[in-house]
Amino acid sequence: MGELMLLPARRGRAQRLNKGQSIKIVNTHGNQVVDTWCFNAEDLGEFMSMEHLRPTLGRIWPQKGDALITNRRRPILTMVEDTSPGRHDTLIAACDVHRYAQLGCKEYHDNCTDNLRAGMRQIGLAVPEVPAPLNMWMNIPVSTGGETSWGTPLSKAGDYVVLRAELDCIVAMSACPQDMVPINGKDCIPTEAHYQVL
Amino acid sequence: MGELMLLPARRGRAQRLNKGQSIKIVNTHGNQVVDTWCFNAEDLGEFMSMEHLRPTLGRIWPQKGDALITNRRRPILTMVEDTSPGRHDTLIAACDVHRYAQLGCKEYHDNCTDNLRAGMRQIGLAVPEVPAPLNMWMNIPVSTGGETSWGTPLSKAGDYVVLRAELDCIVAMSACPQDMVPINGKDCIPTEAHYQVL
Repeated sequence: MGELMLLPARRGRAQRLNKGQSIKIVNTHGNQVVDTWCFNAEDLGEFMSMEHLRPTLGRIWPQKGDALITNRRRPILTMVEDTSPGRHDTLIAACDVHRYAQLGCKEYHDNCTDNLRAGMRQIGLAVPEVPAPLNMWMNIPVSTGGETSWGTPLSKAGDYVVLRAELDCIVAMSACPQDMVPINGKDCIPTEAHYQVL
Repeated sequence: MGELMLLPARRGRAQRLNKGQSIKIVNTHGNQVVDTWCFNAEDLGEFMSMEHLRPTLGRIWPQKGDALITNRRRPILTMVEDTSPGRHDTLIAACDVHRYAQLGCKEYHDNCTDNLRAGMRQIGLAVPEVPAPLNMWMNIPVSTGGETSWGTPLSKAGDYVVLRAELDCIVAMSACPQDMVPINGKDCIPTEAHYQVL
């Protein structure tokens, strides 16, 4: 088992996994959204895809036991454990400089899109595109009228998910730096998270 | 005003629009889903993005009057008219050969992903990626528990949407060939649609 690794607040990391290995992602303080991506290690053009996942699951968020599929509709990860109430998000793009500009930010704001690129760069890789992430613990209720709202996480400190690699792959994670809408808790204070290769 | 153009059943087409021009997309027989994409004519790496659109709208489908934004969060189209009840889909990936294989198909099945590529190729372009489409008239109810279902269109014959170009762009459309789940009506018979540059 690998050591427990820090995913610093507002930052991104990427981790290679061999097929059969798993990664545990820990919501250390309980309110932190972790944007998560997964790329086929042999072809970064194949990646976990939210728009392909939803019709396969028949649900807008994955649950324990679900295979997470790629843009070629084959499993790349399986969510084998989830100690949280299981509310994650597949609807919302990674935040980016344009999003913070929309929200009124005048200067550079840390963001998950740049964190994905930085995390991949740290292990010598460049992403060909920025797929929609699986936003772990992000709580986006959808009304029957189709309206979305910015909920706060339902998770508690120490909750974790375990994702098992079904292909040799790279998992990228960003501790979301969103501090202008309350997705990281009503205090809007982004925190660190942790991860561990099992 | 341009002539009324045929979007043949099960096929794709692409149409260049100058900023300020509009395209009318007509649900000729009333039950046909039209997968729709839009790319910046000067940079095909910028395109209409469903995951960036949803948080900007605060809704999982666009309505008349809404700006449709790109992966750089700027308007590329505006939905200026919609005579239908306004139920469209942003959640479901374009169908592809892998989807029909999942559904049990043993041979090649027409699909919206290949139709996008073919439509673009007809005007001399190649798409760098296949974004999630705006599925015009596709009716995917979402329960409060997050389950999606395969509804039938709420539109009637002759309903149309008008999309105004906010940038020089290319609109690609596929008359969805899905005949194994009832998204194109309970008879599962894909039909032609039409479009017109205004």
